[in-house]
Amino acid sequence: MYDLIIIGGGPAGLAAGIYAVRFGHNTLILERSEISGQIAFADVVENYPGFPAISGVELMEKFKSHALEVGVETKITEVLRIHDEGEKKIISTDSGDLESKAVIIATGANPEHLNVPGEKEFLSKGVSYCAICDGPFFRNKTIVVVGGGNSAVADAILLSKIARKVYLIHRRDKLRAAKILQERAFAIPSIEFILNAQILEIIGSRGEIRRVEKVIYENLKNGEKHELDTDGVFIYVGIHPNTEIIDVEKDERGFIKTNSFLETSKKGVFAAGDCRDTPIWQLVAAVRDGALAATSASVYIDSLKKEAT
Amino acid sequence: MYDLIIIGGGPAGLAAGIYAVRFGHNTLILERSEISGQIAFADVVENYPGFPAISGVELMEKFKSHALEVGVETKITEVLRIHDEGEKKIISTDSGDLESKAVIIATGANPEHLNVPGEKEFLSKGVSYCAICDGPFFRNKTIVVVGGGNSAVADAILLSKIARKVYLIHRRDKLRAAKILQERAFAIPSIEFILNAQILEIIGSRGEIRRVEKVIYENLKNGEKHELDTDGVFIYVGIHPNTEIIDVEKDERGFIKTNSFLETSKKGVFAAGDCRDTPIWQLVAAVRDGALAATSASVYIDSLKKEAT
Repeated sequence: MYDLIIIGGGPAGLAAGIYAVRFGHNTLILERSEISGQIAFADVVENYPGFPAISGVELMEKFKSHALEVGVETKITEVLRIHDEGEKKIISTDSGDLESKAVIIATGANPEHLNVPGEKEFLSKGVSYCAICDGPFFRNKTIVVVGGGNSAVADAILLSKIARKVYLIHRRDKLRAAKILQERAFAIPSIEFILNAQILEIIGSRGEIRRVEKVIYENLKNGEKHELDTDGVFIYVGIHPNTEIIDVEKDERGFIKTNSFLETSKKGVFAAGDCRDTPIWQLVAAVRDGALAATSASVYIDSLKKEAT
Repeated sequence: MYDLIIIGGGPAGLAAGIYAVRFGHNTLILERSEISGQIAFADVVENYPGFPAISGVELMEKFKSHALEVGVETKITEVLRIHDEGEKKIISTDSGDLESKAVIIATGANPEHLNVPGEKEFLSKGVSYCAICDGPFFRNKTIVVVGGGNSAVADAILLSKIARKVYLIHRRDKLRAAKILQERAFAIPSIEFILNAQILEIIGSRGEIRRVEKVIYENLKNGEKHELDTDGVFIYVGIHPNTEIIDVEKDERGFIKTNSFLETSKKGVFAAGDCRDTPIWQLVAAVRDGALAATSASVYIDSLKKEAT
């Protein structure tokens, strides 16, 4: 039986592993693939202090070798379900069951996709799902924001400080975002609203340097198609936390509810990073969450040991 | 007038600066000294993911050059007082007044010292104030923990998983820690309690390799002096947050109260890192706090700009 099993090998999971092993707990990280986490899709990361510019993949390789060096075990497998049997947690995977005293859920979240041609191809080459992460690469450029909810409008406002021009394209005839956000966005001259419209394709250069150059959208009222030149496409059509594997308290969108020590509603089950109700979806927040969840898990594991003595 | 002034040039302040400049805000960090933060006292840091082993000073130099590279301004000065005039904050320093729209307090906290010979000399050479940070360097070694409160007893328990032997030395005839912590500690055979005792001196090798070797303590009942061989001395006699410069809501120990977006009780004033009511005093937590506080400050600054248009 492991002391601790961590589900997810992104920044939260790897940070948790580093901390847990340093506390003397035998710890296993279960990953879906060799290099995990949304950050692995980032072309350049410029906001992890200590590394002024590094690719997401390279940074995750550093995290992973750090974790392996301190003695974290990792295993590539798909987790199907977590069963809570009190002082024993059973993790069902596609390669059999595993047991641990405590579990940290660090499974992340995935942005919903538009599912249009060019979206995948130009990911991190102009296509982004995170203004805080990638906005600064678009100084004085043109950006298309897709969506009409709070995230879309808030990030259009944020991007308008950086970009020369922001187009907000939304399928419906009005925005869903909070009134105050809408009013703030309407007051910014560099934000232009294209309503009742839907992106059909993202087009860019396909040579040595791949970059987004324009989008094609359809006016849903009259079916007309338009081209719009742009350097970036920021997509906000939803976010999906990967939390189906466990029954704990979640918010209405499926993010795991945690207290300030990252405990969930189940004893011995902790959550860290993008899969929980975090105030920011950021690499540094995931890393801190991992460290904090491991610290809390360590206290929990030690309390079990004591009772067993 | 600056958009944002950050008080403190440790990990929280530098991370906040990196984020704020990336959002397009002109940002000044006020530091007390060239390289700041408690972490600068760490001989080796092994738990900042990405750097398996690096000195605290070296890591802070990397943070600082990262911040300067993205365009953060820094100034070495002592902040005397922060005056909140609504949409304008006035920061009084020993070299004059500065103005900003928003302020992030990232002034850190300092552990209280025993003030005995050897304490300063062997800092990070066996003397530590943080088990989570430095405990793992004492695998199978002997440790003296000083103090009788929750931190002392909780960390004695944590250290007992790593060290071979833990002595807890406390001035009074009983501990102040919570009953459950006391009971847990009493049940661990490798923890030995030396009550009614006071450390007089920390002694170690002073050659090429400086390391703690023993402590001298006094039995306060009969005045007898004793030597005790040890590899480490972990000191928990209090922690002092550097928060006198501003009137905002604080907890009973002086840590600044924050909500989940790191807003304080004053609009436009944010707090990050060890000076706030953080669940863990850790480098990664300070970095995340800096990023989050800058994100929240950015939203605040942009809302002012809107109203001014």
